[in-house]
Amino acid sequence: MNFEYNQKTKDLLARLNAFMDSHVYPNERLYHEQVCADRWGNPPIIDELKEKARAAGLWNLFLPDSEHGAGLTNVEYAPLCEVMGRAHFSPQIFNCAAPDTGNIETIERYGTQEQKARWLPGMLDGTIRSAFAMTEPEVASSDATNIRSSIVRDGDDYVINGHKWWISGVGDPRCELLIFMGKTDPQAPKHKQQSMILVPLKTPGIEVIRPMTVFGYDDAPHGHMEIRFENVRVPASSILLGEGRGFEIAQGRLGPGRIHHCMRLIGLAERCLELMCRRVSKRVAFGRPIGEQSVTLERIAESRILIDQARLLTLKAAYMMDTVGNKEARAEIAMIKVAAPNMACKVIDWAIQAHGAAGVSQDFVLANYYAHARKIRFADGPDEVHRNQIGRLELAKYAEAT
Amino acid sequence: MNFEYNQKTKDLLARLNAFMDSHVYPNERLYHEQVCADRWGNPPIIDELKEKARAAGLWNLFLPDSEHGAGLTNVEYAPLCEVMGRAHFSPQIFNCAAPDTGNIETIERYGTQEQKARWLPGMLDGTIRSAFAMTEPEVASSDATNIRSSIVRDGDDYVINGHKWWISGVGDPRCELLIFMGKTDPQAPKHKQQSMILVPLKTPGIEVIRPMTVFGYDDAPHGHMEIRFENVRVPASSILLGEGRGFEIAQGRLGPGRIHHCMRLIGLAERCLELMCRRVSKRVAFGRPIGEQSVTLERIAESRILIDQARLLTLKAAYMMDTVGNKEARAEIAMIKVAAPNMACKVIDWAIQAHGAAGVSQDFVLANYYAHARKIRFADGPDEVHRNQIGRLELAKYAEAT
Amino acid sequence: MNFEYNQKTKDLLARLNAFMDSHVYPNERLYHEQVCADRWGNPPIIDELKEKARAAGLWNLFLPDSEHGAGLTNVEYAPLCEVMGRAHFSPQIFNCAAPDTGNIETIERYGTQEQKARWLPGMLDGTIRSAFAMTEPEVASSDATNIRSSIVRDGDDYVINGHKWWISGVGDPRCELLIFMGKTDPQAPKHKQQSMILVPLKTPGIEVIRPMTVFGYDDAPHGHMEIRFENVRVPASSILLGEGRGFEIAQGRLGPGRIHHCMRLIGLAERCLELMCRRVSKRVAFGRPIGEQSVTLERIAESRILIDQARLLTLKAAYMMDTVGNKEARAEIAMIKVAAPNMACKVIDWAIQAHGAAGVSQDFVLANYYAHARKIRFADGPDEVHRNQIGRLELAKYAEAT
Amino acid sequence: MNFEYNQKTKDLLARLNAFMDSHVYPNERLYHEQVCADRWGNPPIIDELKEKARAAGLWNLFLPDSEHGAGLTNVEYAPLCEVMGRAHFSPQIFNCAAPDTGNIETIERYGTQEQKARWLPGMLDGTIRSAFAMTEPEVASSDATNIRSSIVRDGDDYVINGHKWWISGVGDPRCELLIFMGKTDPQAPKHKQQSMILVPLKTPGIEVIRPMTVFGYDDAPHGHMEIRFENVRVPASSILLGEGRGFEIAQGRLGPGRIHHCMRLIGLAERCLELMCRRVSKRVAFGRPIGEQSVTLERIAESRILIDQARLLTLKAAYMMDTVGNKEARAEIAMIKVAAPNMACKVIDWAIQAHGAAGVSQDFVLANYYAHARKIRFADGPDEVHRNQIGRLELAKYAEAT
Repeated sequence: MNFEYNQKTKDLLARLNAFMDSHVYPNERLYHEQVCADRWGNPPIIDELKEKARAAGLWNLFLPDSEHGAGLTNVEYAPLCEVMGRAHFSPQIFNCAAPDTGNIETIERYGTQEQKARWLPGMLDGTIRSAFAMTEPEVASSDATNIRSSIVRDGDDYVINGHKWWISGVGDPRCELLIFMGKTDPQAPKHKQQSMILVPLKTPGIEVIRPMTVFGYDDAPHGHMEIRFENVRVPASSILLGEGRGFEIAQGRLGPGRIHHCMRLIGLAERCLELMCRRVSKRVAFGRPIGEQSVTLERIAESRILIDQARLLTLKAAYMMDTVGNKEARAEIAMIKVAAPNMACKVIDWAIQAHGAAGVSQDFVLANYYAHARKIRFADGPDEVHRNQIGRLELAKYAEAT
Repeated sequence: MNFEYNQKTKDLLARLNAFMDSHVYPNERLYHEQVCADRWGNPPIIDELKEKARAAGLWNLFLPDSEHGAGLTNVEYAPLCEVMGRAHFSPQIFNCAAPDTGNIETIERYGTQEQKARWLPGMLDGTIRSAFAMTEPEVASSDATNIRSSIVRDGDDYVINGHKWWISGVGDPRCELLIFMGKTDPQAPKHKQQSMILVPLKTPGIEVIRPMTVFGYDDAPHGHMEIRFENVRVPASSILLGEGRGFEIAQGRLGPGRIHHCMRLIGLAERCLELMCRRVSKRVAFGRPIGEQSVTLERIAESRILIDQARLLTLKAAYMMDTVGNKEARAEIAMIKVAAPNMACKVIDWAIQAHGAAGVSQDFVLANYYAHARKIRFADGPDEVHRNQIGRLELAKYAEAT
Repeated sequence: MNFEYNQKTKDLLARLNAFMDSHVYPNERLYHEQVCADRWGNPPIIDELKEKARAAGLWNLFLPDSEHGAGLTNVEYAPLCEVMGRAHFSPQIFNCAAPDTGNIETIERYGTQEQKARWLPGMLDGTIRSAFAMTEPEVASSDATNIRSSIVRDGDDYVINGHKWWISGVGDPRCELLIFMGKTDPQAPKHKQQSMILVPLKTPGIEVIRPMTVFGYDDAPHGHMEIRFENVRVPASSILLGEGRGFEIAQGRLGPGRIHHCMRLIGLAERCLELMCRRVSKRVAFGRPIGEQSVTLERIAESRILIDQARLLTLKAAYMMDTVGNKEARAEIAMIKVAAPNMACKVIDWAIQAHGAAGVSQDFVLANYYAHARKIRFADGPDEVHRNQIGRLELAKYAEAT
Repeated sequence: MNFEYNQKTKDLLARLNAFMDSHVYPNERLYHEQVCADRWGNPPIIDELKEKARAAGLWNLFLPDSEHGAGLTNVEYAPLCEVMGRAHFSPQIFNCAAPDTGNIETIERYGTQEQKARWLPGMLDGTIRSAFAMTEPEVASSDATNIRSSIVRDGDDYVINGHKWWISGVGDPRCELLIFMGKTDPQAPKHKQQSMILVPLKTPGIEVIRPMTVFGYDDAPHGHMEIRFENVRVPASSILLGEGRGFEIAQGRLGPGRIHHCMRLIGLAERCLELMCRRVSKRVAFGRPIGEQSVTLERIAESRILIDQARLLTLKAAYMMDTVGNKEARAEIAMIKVAAPNMACKVIDWAIQAHGAAGVSQDFVLANYYAHARKIRFADGPDEVHRNQIGRLELAKYAEAT
């Protein structure tokens, strides 16, 4: 495993950090004010910064092996993605935000020429955003075979019915496209029942019901939407890869999506640890700076250890994805999907505690970031599903031998 | 220690539970709808339920040894307070909500006849609500000697200047009174510098700046307000007990306030465990109800153990407050102040995990209750301050002997 | 629940504490020296102290409702048992040691007049000790239906074959009796296959193979023995209660056995916390007593909280056993069986850490006590079995309602 | 960071694993039998295996940049050291055991030509073993300035007086040399008071008092000895580097010592996880293999995550030692010194639990390995000292900026 940053990564990292320092952190407050003023609109600062980022060559960095992107491996992208994750609103500035990154990769990999031509230019341009419609309120969606929305062929069309929620990004005024998962054949073998299909958001029959909240945050204007689909009709050519291929696409799609979440969470945790260190150095209680209490030093030390370990495990998973492929790396991807959000929750919780009540308030990013990290413990499957998979893979090593 | 419920408690408990079943739980959704419709107004359902509760004899139950209250000991009140805590908005229905309960007790115990006559009737009636203004943004307020607002004698008045935040309850349209803590004499010995004074909320010079949020919740219409005091002038007769007695009052006041928080948190945790049990019995993943997974059973078991242990420790602290007094019970009060909110956070976090993403959303009370329990880890001093105190009291047992 | 100590308990407790101070703690080192000098013999100090304890009326305190014992309820016995548990070798001094206490109760409750007459006088006298032979190396004995030793009727005898281990107490030269569990009818319904039978230790065919060690300790002269039974023949009248009643007896027997373990562990943990407090007050590192570090204070505080909570939960379980019976109290017994040993392990581990390397050595009781507490996490079923049971009982509360 | 194994490492690793499979694991039981038969002697199997290992070119692998060793970097040595750590008795077979490795490096680096000529050949040959005498019973030795033994110049000699314990390796009949730390000048500045000196074990005045036990293990024949030094006289030329240089040497010495411990602990934990996996696949409780319970799968998954993270952090620390030096790597060395033994304790504790009572017995290596890992939490400084250092280094990053 070689985690050394090469020259390309070092250059990009230096430019990215400079951009964050000059343009992102100083505008964090402005961004929040603009969102407060027009909760579900386009905060103007985003467009300004997107232009600047593109001009600075910090655009579509996530896209591997591609004429459109930076052509970075996962290991090369990891430190960049981490830095973008330090400010929750910043990945979109570089057109590297979820779920667009996963959706772009999905269309690149599995789309027809026609599908690519229709959607990719706008998505790579950052003028079109997209969402991924899988989770359903009525079933335990961590077991994807439970997904029960229907996609029924009717002449030259498919007709879609279903009820989804937690469809992230639909709140953004730029959001135009859904990748929708549902059953084309409920009678087929379990892993051949599901398909994915491209659905323009303004297709008649789509009703966005409400944003779901995460510990009180609606994450406007991004939003995690509940949506009802009633007889939504799209051309048959909208299907991705073919009927019954939904699982196959999901497998290929989820690896990068998961590891990007983890990279960003590491940046998030670093940011919170920095806030904690700065805070405890300044506040005095019972005659001494809080930072000189051994309880505080212990938490800072444990945070440092947890973050560094999570970063190394992320890099290992990235390295394996780069060298032996997402499928061979599935244990490592599952491991970091468990480790990173739990690490972030723990580090942020300590940082909150070090801030006193201020730590749960709007004056610091901590509580908002905690809510985000806590939510990622469910995204793409809860911890429990991943731990079961890791445990089974480990037991399998000794199965033949016994 | 006798924790047996006597007949009085049993009767009240039966009536209270019946009231919760008939009137509180069924109106939870309506309450939230009314708050959404008029965020900082009086939700009409509250007035309706208050009248009903009063008629049912479930009113001011918290008030010990009093002609106005139920005359319950802390041990007798504990199971009632716990049940009220099961729904976050319910304590005020019974006129048993923080911070009014602590404020009423403070005025009863330390107020002049005039002060009592002015404020108590309305507070006991539930027409006047109140707040407690201690925490300040500029200093680590967990060390109360850091409080730096000034209360300066000027002729027949006191003039108050300062900056406070997290002043809970000020958002309620009924809130009319603040108990304010500040320094009357910065040159006095450390524990004689602070005083408490009664300040009507509409006194000129008081500016309510904004509600603080707890994670993403502003807890409207209750609210945790940031307030600026500029040359706020009140009659000298508003002082409580006398100049320099602030610490003494704080000591007497905080015991009951802390233990009531803990009692309510136990009810909150019980509610969340019930939600968890119901959820896992119904949801199926990977072919089996989630409730049959041993991981789920372990978490339910640990929750049961944690809740029962916290309840017993609360009862022990209550019993000691009843029999040897708040001061002698200070270790036990500190212990439950640490144990109960941490227990609640853990139990609720497991309940959230059992609900999947729904657990962090507005569709269940869980995330909101988590935010509340997390905040209580700071209220009246963070865990760390209490643990230090407990540790020192333990070491003192062996200090003479060594 | 009334946990108040009544006058009888207070008197016994005062006398017991005085006895511990005068006779037990001062002889702890002598006891260990005598054991080192004659590892599997009778340390003479034990006999001396037993006589003294009996003379002091501190004898067979565990025995409820009996002409032979002190007639204490579980709640009354709890604080006494806790104090005995403070020194690992002390319960036998008061004839209150496991597994004799459980065995005496078993014979009292389920034995025939003949069985009682044969064994009880010596056991109550402390001249005969006994053991309980259930666990087997070949199967997961936590599931008692796995027990596979055979007890076969042959004329007027039963013939016993099997392989047992962890048979505690067999090392003691006074040990004369085994209560043996095995299958009389492998074809019977699952819970009717097992029986219990009384087997004198010197019956031909019994081979004591070796003592098992617990983290390197063989617990001589008590010992946890591996034993092979080959065609061991005892009179048919030795069976307890009748064929197929083994489970029924196990149920009745395990409640008191489990809670006594927990009571003793609380005393053990208190002792270790005391050692920790004394140590950190004296040792200086980096210019300050270790006891003034907030990390140390936190651990002492958490220990205090954990111990007090475990004690209260033990008392609750004891109270329920006294008032509604062992069967109704099964959830509470399971809860304390999980909570107490885990609490003890955590507290002792912190105490070890506070002692530096000395903490794991023979110069302090800590490592030995840790090993004991760790072992109790398996005794009478591992944590996991109890947590499953608690979880299922909790889910059952809501099963009808859903 | 490049953690890729190069060809040299891969070759050595393949040969080492083959050697372990052919010669070490199959002789584990024999080794223990030989130790039981002659507790403080030379188990003959060790000499046999040492010869074989040397013949196989698996000798002194630890020694960096040296004509005598394999010339491996820390990164290259890490996977080899890990494999040796899988069996507790195996490092000495390859002449790579603590504390000899650290002592050899110390003499190589700081010794005079005469000192090297006297000691190194035998130590590199494996005919002479050595010990490091620092820890003292009377003071908190984690703060090395507390060390109070005296080394006094007297003519051409130094005269040594002091009381040491936990001097590991002195039990081995081959042990001939002590590196002794004590004060040459109690009046000097704090970090110039201590010196190190070479002391032959048979010098008159050295009394080996007893082996300390770790839990119930005396680790014979290695042994952790208590030793008294009374007027022990050695030639002045025995001093290392010069008076007052003790701290300087300690700094240089401890880095490799600590990281080797961590590498071995990772192997130890891997071994225990393997044992756990094999066990749970075979044992059935309540109708299902224990390995199919989700609680078991969770623990296996968490173990896998913890081990992999600890290994990566060890490699990072090793890489930094190789590239920027031990001093620059001090935070990383401290981090892994905290993370690895705590990880090992947790993984082994789960493995023990999966084995039932067998897990704490002599039939499996688990309890012995737990005791060892637990002890390493004190070796070269307890966790708390390292966490304080890590926390301070982290705070320092932001100190200028604030």
